[in-house]
Amino acid sequence: MKNTFGNYVSVTLFGESHGAEIGVVMDGLAPGIPVDENFIAEKLKKRRPSGVISTARVEEDKFRIVSGVFGGVTTGAPLCILIPNKNVNSKDYSLLSETPRPSHADFAAHCKYHGNQDYRGGGHFSGRLTAALVAAGAIAQSALLAKGIKIGTHISSIGEISDRWFEDFDSDVERLKENPTLDPIAWHEMQEYIKSVAKEGDSVGGILETAVTGMPKGVGEPWFDGVEGVIARAIYAIPAVKGVEFGAGFGFGKMRGSQANDPFAIRNGEVVTLTNNNGGINGGITNGMPIIFRTAVKPTPSIFIEQQTVNLKTMMDEKLSLKGRHDPAIVHRAAPVVDAMTAIALLDMLCGRFGTDYLIP
Amino acid sequence: MKNTFGNYVSVTLFGESHGAEIGVVMDGLAPGIPVDENFIAEKLKKRRPSGVISTARVEEDKFRIVSGVFGGVTTGAPLCILIPNKNVNSKDYSLLSETPRPSHADFAAHCKYHGNQDYRGGGHFSGRLTAALVAAGAIAQSALLAKGIKIGTHISSIGEISDRWFEDFDSDVERLKENPTLDPIAWHEMQEYIKSVAKEGDSVGGILETAVTGMPKGVGEPWFDGVEGVIARAIYAIPAVKGVEFGAGFGFGKMRGSQANDPFAIRNGEVVTLTNNNGGINGGITNGMPIIFRTAVKPTPSIFIEQQTVNLKTMMDEKLSLKGRHDPAIVHRAAPVVDAMTAIALLDMLCGRFGTDYLIP
Amino acid sequence: MKNTFGNYVSVTLFGESHGAEIGVVMDGLAPGIPVDENFIAEKLKKRRPSGVISTARVEEDKFRIVSGVFGGVTTGAPLCILIPNKNVNSKDYSLLSETPRPSHADFAAHCKYHGNQDYRGGGHFSGRLTAALVAAGAIAQSALLAKGIKIGTHISSIGEISDRWFEDFDSDVERLKENPTLDPIAWHEMQEYIKSVAKEGDSVGGILETAVTGMPKGVGEPWFDGVEGVIARAIYAIPAVKGVEFGAGFGFGKMRGSQANDPFAIRNGEVVTLTNNNGGINGGITNGMPIIFRTAVKPTPSIFIEQQTVNLKTMMDEKLSLKGRHDPAIVHRAAPVVDAMTAIALLDMLCGRFGTDYLIP
Amino acid sequence: MKNTFGNYVSVTLFGESHGAEIGVVMDGLAPGIPVDENFIAEKLKKRRPSGVISTARVEEDKFRIVSGVFGGVTTGAPLCILIPNKNVNSKDYSLLSETPRPSHADFAAHCKYHGNQDYRGGGHFSGRLTAALVAAGAIAQSALLAKGIKIGTHISSIGEISDRWFEDFDSDVERLKENPTLDPIAWHEMQEYIKSVAKEGDSVGGILETAVTGMPKGVGEPWFDGVEGVIARAIYAIPAVKGVEFGAGFGFGKMRGSQANDPFAIRNGEVVTLTNNNGGINGGITNGMPIIFRTAVKPTPSIFIEQQTVNLKTMMDEKLSLKGRHDPAIVHRAAPVVDAMTAIALLDMLCGRFGTDYLIP
Repeated sequence: MKNTFGNYVSVTLFGESHGAEIGVVMDGLAPGIPVDENFIAEKLKKRRPSGVISTARVEEDKFRIVSGVFGGVTTGAPLCILIPNKNVNSKDYSLLSETPRPSHADFAAHCKYHGNQDYRGGGHFSGRLTAALVAAGAIAQSALLAKGIKIGTHISSIGEISDRWFEDFDSDVERLKENPTLDPIAWHEMQEYIKSVAKEGDSVGGILETAVTGMPKGVGEPWFDGVEGVIARAIYAIPAVKGVEFGAGFGFGKMRGSQANDPFAIRNGEVVTLTNNNGGINGGITNGMPIIFRTAVKPTPSIFIEQQTVNLKTMMDEKLSLKGRHDPAIVHRAAPVVDAMTAIALLDMLCGRFGTDYLIP
Repeated sequence: MKNTFGNYVSVTLFGESHGAEIGVVMDGLAPGIPVDENFIAEKLKKRRPSGVISTARVEEDKFRIVSGVFGGVTTGAPLCILIPNKNVNSKDYSLLSETPRPSHADFAAHCKYHGNQDYRGGGHFSGRLTAALVAAGAIAQSALLAKGIKIGTHISSIGEISDRWFEDFDSDVERLKENPTLDPIAWHEMQEYIKSVAKEGDSVGGILETAVTGMPKGVGEPWFDGVEGVIARAIYAIPAVKGVEFGAGFGFGKMRGSQANDPFAIRNGEVVTLTNNNGGINGGITNGMPIIFRTAVKPTPSIFIEQQTVNLKTMMDEKLSLKGRHDPAIVHRAAPVVDAMTAIALLDMLCGRFGTDYLIP
Repeated sequence: MKNTFGNYVSVTLFGESHGAEIGVVMDGLAPGIPVDENFIAEKLKKRRPSGVISTARVEEDKFRIVSGVFGGVTTGAPLCILIPNKNVNSKDYSLLSETPRPSHADFAAHCKYHGNQDYRGGGHFSGRLTAALVAAGAIAQSALLAKGIKIGTHISSIGEISDRWFEDFDSDVERLKENPTLDPIAWHEMQEYIKSVAKEGDSVGGILETAVTGMPKGVGEPWFDGVEGVIARAIYAIPAVKGVEFGAGFGFGKMRGSQANDPFAIRNGEVVTLTNNNGGINGGITNGMPIIFRTAVKPTPSIFIEQQTVNLKTMMDEKLSLKGRHDPAIVHRAAPVVDAMTAIALLDMLCGRFGTDYLIP
Repeated sequence: MKNTFGNYVSVTLFGESHGAEIGVVMDGLAPGIPVDENFIAEKLKKRRPSGVISTARVEEDKFRIVSGVFGGVTTGAPLCILIPNKNVNSKDYSLLSETPRPSHADFAAHCKYHGNQDYRGGGHFSGRLTAALVAAGAIAQSALLAKGIKIGTHISSIGEISDRWFEDFDSDVERLKENPTLDPIAWHEMQEYIKSVAKEGDSVGGILETAVTGMPKGVGEPWFDGVEGVIARAIYAIPAVKGVEFGAGFGFGKMRGSQANDPFAIRNGEVVTLTNNNGGINGGITNGMPIIFRTAVKPTPSIFIEQQTVNLKTMMDEKLSLKGRHDPAIVHRAAPVVDAMTAIALLDMLCGRFGTDYLIP
């Protein structure tokens, strides 16, 4: 199941950066879930590049639902969404089949596919395909919302600039519809920083932080399908992600049990924890507290500064000066993809636990 | 596939802390792989508690291979290993069915299993089951060694005490057979620190670091079955793990592309990278450089300091004073489990790529 | 994995009879496999209705490969094929949402999907979707042919009219490109019979017989993934199939061991069996002899004779007189679908055994 | 997932004929299902050889539940059952590693496992392992019974002797606890026939027929996970099965639509069909009528009449005269295994549809 994620509700991804369309097939969705095309469009818009801090390749993302929806609701049959690629400029990439870009998939793909991969624009590895994931994730998110489950991802930091932490989750999630940070000043500063780095032909990385509220208790499996493992696998699917940590994460390395443990207490007749260092998960299973995790996104590998690479034909070292259209930062564009993959992962776990019909509103 | 990991070579885990036996079924192993019971015993020994910094419950781990081996080699049929539980003291745990231990799986399991879980010693959630994973991982590791693939995990840090970084990998891996650190002085200091914390009835967390050398190029899948995602899912299966990062990991958040990108070069007729910030993985696929990742292990939740919890029967707050036998640190005991899960994950990816017979020596 | 078949090379099916397109995603194909669009078109033509014995709905089947092919060969990334639905007449079906057709999926689908299924033309259950399976199967078949593996399916019988048995397999398979029987007279008689039944507004069933030559020895798994079980699951995916038997099949019920057992012998330095009652499979694993199986296809459920059904709204009995365009027999049209599903099933088993790269020519 | 069946509730099988134990791991069972060891023992007894028509190897089948049960009910964690092999006589089999038995798995296994298979008593391919399936199936059956779902399998025919058809299902299923036929005279005649064939050193095949009542409507998936395909795959796992047909099965080949179609009608406010040629399944999905299928079982391949085989070392033809203990018929012993695999398959489909907790009584 190489390009398929999920055991109960599954997502199969296909397409290439410069093909006619990219797409996704969602299978296992309950019948009768309302599909709101405006909601999908809104999520796609969040992912779309815009302004000076993004690539000049802007796609309209005019998606088309090919199957699985009838009368505005899911039928229960596989739902296929296609998104055409329009603003394609393959000329820029012809050189890259021989001179792999550092920190890109080019060379690894060459080894895996014996040189048969579609190298144009990164082919099947292109971040372009995350548009299809965002579309699928939008359907997942609206099904989760109907169950009271909310997901929010903000940029925690870029370089030395940090955002504030979630406070009032509901209004914070609303806020994230406008900006990728909770504090608008942080976003202003981050953009200035990205612009200055872009001027040097360079790029930046960053950290995203995600919270999920409203998850039922008792979801997930011990050992191999724990909530951490399933979410981590989903998030690592996103290009440029190199780290995922839950709750206090790597911070646990310097903590003691007496600081780290989350004391239980009864509040309003419900079991809660007074702290949430475990990020809402114990033994791989939800405990009813918000799920909290952070995602490390590496700097966009496509930079305009000259780099050292090799020529795979001559097997000699070579210099590489990239042209084309590239983002100086993808952290902010990755945020809606993290939301999408989180929704897809949670949907799968919820349906594994409560059955196909759980999602029926 | 709840308690099963792997699509090509799979591992199915079963058992409880206080049951007669724990065990594991490995399926999909090629026929003809030598199975060295001493090698398995040696790996189990590394996991076994010892000395003052560990629990007083010490198990002999007299494992028994029930199936799948004939004449000292694998047959190709499922290989089942059983490990008896002997040193069991269920009395200590009887209270815990009602008063969940903070940061343990007790409460989440109660929600998931509606109170039917075997609560004795943590039941199916117990770290005890990692012995079965280590046994399975030992078989995986010896198959990988025959292919020139070596795995080494050391304690990178506990509290403020840090180990050095890998230098000469082959001799360093040999060194890790004795101590869980590369620098013996670091291990001495860590033990002193653990002892001092244990005296206070408290526990510590830490960070593990793993390197894999000899991996063929071109292994792994784009998107959902990338090497990062598959390894992360495997490592998150280990109790107490709350973070996994690859290469520069969360450090990427403050880097620029020009620092982060790993330049390609030809060395001895082979494509290599001059740095390895990507930890040997691009686009989810191995590039031939060492795979590098770090694992955050939270402090053992079982501490002797009084904690606040709830009573699930009365639904009232309650104080909890743990008795029984508990580790003040499990970081060092988790190291061989990380090795084991890494080996299991790599085996699965290699056989998915190269077929069942790849492992035949 | 509801609408996905295969663990190593997988096929995901989507679409509805009256949607814009039907399609299929194949994943796990090795890179570098030549994709011949004419070969796909030829296979689709075999499935297409033609002449008086078929439905008046004829589709052009102008398929489109959306991804996974570059420069005429597979890239190794998911291969998506879309086939548009053009000759659609939804008006005929509007009544059927309330009055399920006997022996069709209408009522069962209504129960499963709580009335949200796309009922037009049978929706996702329509035989129309087998066109997408045939397209995927054509790619599978050409990859198998490159390995010397040939698949042939003929109509063994319709009503009382029987075809002869395979003699010279290679020339017989050529012959099946023209007719669905090996004996052209049998096909002439079958068509006359179908026509006479069609005049009465009725339909017929039949039996298909399939042979596969050139399969390597030692493919398949004991127990749950035996060749019989995997092929049977693949063939039962085809609408109207109600029986699958291997080798002597149900005939074994009256045989003795001394008649049934296939004696081994050495011929030209190879182990062969002198008879092939086991249809090339022992213990779920290929033994190198041709794989032989038979498929029972029920009469097309859509007949023009008045039938008894119920009204799901009024919950009263009701008479049903079908209109629209329906095949009086689908046995001959099912033959290329059986070929396709067989190829898909074998491909998966071969790649599970020999790895992704096995299919590289 | 080679030796694992099921996506939601899974069964993993391990062991060899002459190993210390055979066993099975069931995963995904809901917590709180009562486990009645007497019920398991009763099912195992039905499978056990007895009397003159069976092998002289009789095993006590003293099974042991190693995990997953606590306080008499399932915990929700994996349930492992071990059954020791006691009456083992490996001497008889030592020759067979070189001279494969016709129609047995010996040669195919040799090809697949490159000669490393455990050949003693058929090793992992032995019918002995069906004891573990029966034990797992017993747990599945008691969970289904609690939901009102009943399974019954009788011998439909052996040679020319036929049993009657199911009449009153509930009392018929009770009757099958004593004999494997519904008509005791048929069983008497079958036994006489088997005895006479056994005297000649030969063996017989037969046909089993299974009915399932009480299945909810709307279970199963279109296309690849239809009820027919899932059950067929489960039944083909049983050694010696070479055919599976549903409802009228191969009889459809001579029927017309007007005879074959099952008319719908309202009876007692429920939609039913007036005939059941489709065996309770339309479009791969249950329609609420009894599931009906038939299984073809080939004659036991182990016969005492001299047979022709080959010597895999010398690669010369050779004569084979079997010794040891073998059944002259396994049809009757296969009946409880068919019940077991049916229960396992239905459980998986029900939990995929209704979630993990469906089975909680």
